[in-house]
Amino acid sequence: METWKDYQKKNKERFLSEMIELLRIPSISAKSEHKKDMLTCAEAVKQSLLASGADKAEIMSTAGHPVVYGEKIIDANKPTVLVYGHYDVQPAEPLELWHSGPFEPVIKDGKVYARGSADDKGQFFMHVKALETMVKTNTMTTNIKFLIEGEEEVGSPNLRKFVEENKDLLKADVILISDSSMLSMENPSLDIGVRGLSYIEVEVTGADRDLHSGTYGGAVANPITVLSKMIASCHDDNNHITIPGFYDDVLEASVEERALMNKAPYDEDEYKKEVGVKELWGEQGYTTNERTGIRPTLEINGIWGGYMGEGAKTVLPSKATAKISARLVPNQSSVKMTKLLLDYFKKIAPPSVAVKAFEHHGGEPYMTPIESKGYKAASKAVEKTFGKTPIPVRGGGSIPICSILEKELGIKIIFMGFGLDSDNLHSPNEKYGIENFYKGIETIPYFHKYFAEEQIK
Amino acid sequence: METWKDYQKKNKERFLSEMIELLRIPSISAKSEHKKDMLTCAEAVKQSLLASGADKAEIMSTAGHPVVYGEKIIDANKPTVLVYGHYDVQPAEPLELWHSGPFEPVIKDGKVYARGSADDKGQFFMHVKALETMVKTNTMTTNIKFLIEGEEEVGSPNLRKFVEENKDLLKADVILISDSSMLSMENPSLDIGVRGLSYIEVEVTGADRDLHSGTYGGAVANPITVLSKMIASCHDDNNHITIPGFYDDVLEASVEERALMNKAPYDEDEYKKEVGVKELWGEQGYTTNERTGIRPTLEINGIWGGYMGEGAKTVLPSKATAKISARLVPNQSSVKMTKLLLDYFKKIAPPSVAVKAFEHHGGEPYMTPIESKGYKAASKAVEKTFGKTPIPVRGGGSIPICSILEKELGIKIIFMGFGLDSDNLHSPNEKYGIENFYKGIETIPYFHKYFAEEQIK
Repeated sequence: METWKDYQKKNKERFLSEMIELLRIPSISAKSEHKKDMLTCAEAVKQSLLASGADKAEIMSTAGHPVVYGEKIIDANKPTVLVYGHYDVQPAEPLELWHSGPFEPVIKDGKVYARGSADDKGQFFMHVKALETMVKTNTMTTNIKFLIEGEEEVGSPNLRKFVEENKDLLKADVILISDSSMLSMENPSLDIGVRGLSYIEVEVTGADRDLHSGTYGGAVANPITVLSKMIASCHDDNNHITIPGFYDDVLEASVEERALMNKAPYDEDEYKKEVGVKELWGEQGYTTNERTGIRPTLEINGIWGGYMGEGAKTVLPSKATAKISARLVPNQSSVKMTKLLLDYFKKIAPPSVAVKAFEHHGGEPYMTPIESKGYKAASKAVEKTFGKTPIPVRGGGSIPICSILEKELGIKIIFMGFGLDSDNLHSPNEKYGIENFYKGIETIPYFHKYFAEEQIK
Repeated sequence: METWKDYQKKNKERFLSEMIELLRIPSISAKSEHKKDMLTCAEAVKQSLLASGADKAEIMSTAGHPVVYGEKIIDANKPTVLVYGHYDVQPAEPLELWHSGPFEPVIKDGKVYARGSADDKGQFFMHVKALETMVKTNTMTTNIKFLIEGEEEVGSPNLRKFVEENKDLLKADVILISDSSMLSMENPSLDIGVRGLSYIEVEVTGADRDLHSGTYGGAVANPITVLSKMIASCHDDNNHITIPGFYDDVLEASVEERALMNKAPYDEDEYKKEVGVKELWGEQGYTTNERTGIRPTLEINGIWGGYMGEGAKTVLPSKATAKISARLVPNQSSVKMTKLLLDYFKKIAPPSVAVKAFEHHGGEPYMTPIESKGYKAASKAVEKTFGKTPIPVRGGGSIPICSILEKELGIKIIFMGFGLDSDNLHSPNEKYGIENFYKGIETIPYFHKYFAEEQIK
């Protein structure tokens, strides 16, 4: 019988080109103009599942963008792994900073450059090709189900309902997600948690129209000045968040966990060079890994108001708007934190302006236990193909659906990501290493094998 | 001989339609794409001067947009009035807030709606039609020269050189400008000063590209947060500007002037209603008229950074930028204040970001003495046609060229504006009252008459 390795070696160019075809579809869930592209992408995912040996695959509608479900059931008595991924991608702006079209994939220096290459098309597609590998070599060790959604980048607003209504269909023993990164190819790691998210938008209005800054400036509130003051009030000089109650529910990481985290390879000069800054910034009393792993944060994701064009315009603007999001850690509740943020920005506004604030989306933080069978299987699989035991780390990003999946399906989630932090996720020139892609396809079948073995231990 | 009034009555519809034709030309000096429109507009101004009786009119080039010069010399021994105006206009953004096209003039409720209607095409054109009135009725009392420039809205960067090189051509006894407003048609006023201006742009850069806010947020400086803090630091809780040295050179207005200013008609409820706010904002210890007249101010004219599109994007932006301007009062120097602002924003930036700051343009504050012959002539002219002595007020806006004109030509400037503060200058739906337009054409010939009389007193 052909080995996994042989099969993959023989088909690697095809695997890559199939993945690249998927990247050509601009499946931007946030923008209504891409609704049709979302359907095209869902159809492509469905076809790839069928072509790779799934017994069935279908596009299932939701109130928003559809879910692609697929499965390969080999034996009802064997354990079942539910693979979660998402076929939608982040908006590509600012477009002028891309070196090649975000949806015209280019291979350079061993990386595929395109929006969605690492987040998450390139990563969930490894599971499709791992399925193909096992089917074609007749070596399936578990049942596999696929839940590939189209709304992860907008906070999965319709997935809870979908999961609630399809509990039987989604029944499994563990959930496996490749939508995160590892420290490096030399220092493989496994995320043991993701942060939660509260994402809001705040609009400040002064006068009911733009005014002449000479005639009215100094007598009528400038919404940019006011919004800036509101934003400035959120962090103190130690970069500690000052919004009352913000840290109330934070479950402090143990001394042991912090010690373990800080053993992970980290070179501050390298890190600074990698992002192009002279000095880092962050909450006093915490290291970089802690700041992005165990601490909640507050970021301004966007701001705009007044004249943004060429040259100068002496205008006192009517409006200023900001997109603001917090990353949350156990045991912060996204619902509670979103309300806290909305209330804060409404409350601190002076009477000279009007404030509208609303939620974009949110998600709960999630932690996976390293003693679980799923984590052990993942750890062994990575060790098998990378030759090193992966370091458990807390990821800084958010996968809002995690807590919902666990709650509704009653099973644990394992994060086995093969990307790198430097893959420019959500940024121009997003990329995914071809080596990472192949290594993922190589590793995934071992996860299924070891997970099946753990189940019968 | 036909009277001014009769001639104007007979020709008023034509005067208005000629003015409206001028408004159709999108002469936006700030935008390079409108360079051709600027030339078209200059040519139209030149033709209108010639058609209205100027002896000569020509388009004179500068390093930027050209100047239109025209003259009607009746007698070298008579006093000469130099009319200054500008044919360029502000950018029209935000376009979506206009009820009709900014360059498709519409008449509604007795007002002409279009960019440039009040600032300044509709106003300088009154002088062209006043010239026509006096020429056609053979009643010229002074020589008249016209200096209509095309770069007022971008800070007149090339006018100083032009004036220096054309001192003889521009030689006059007084400069008359209609580029400001009066309190109301019922309470006519004359500006006795304009504020100076320092206009800069500040760009804050954190990482060298947009980053994922989950992966890097909390560890790498967010330029929006930093810029917000920088902006927030400029005003204290009393809305007093806290930039060190900002008020150092302010010549405090006298108790008498403040008392006089505060006698001007002002209804706070009416003012709030007019701009659509519930509460006013401003420097503690000063009234609204003082805040916009005798006090220097600092406004954020525009801000942008990060994701500004539909929906949510969890990005840690690389850059945030703001356009910032200060209005200056006697004896603040624009050059000194611009340096003060640039230095301040560079100095207060933390080492986790890089700051670029540069000047857009500036201009000195200017005051005209109410004892001057020019002011007296203007005051008598307004009293003649409005039936009330105009109130002297300090205007909040800036005409950067004033101090240069006075310095180079050695003569005083008289502001005789017929607009209203509510004309939406620099805003969507800029308008100019048809009645104001006619009243201006009616008043201007009296200025010339009384100024000639003052000269021989």
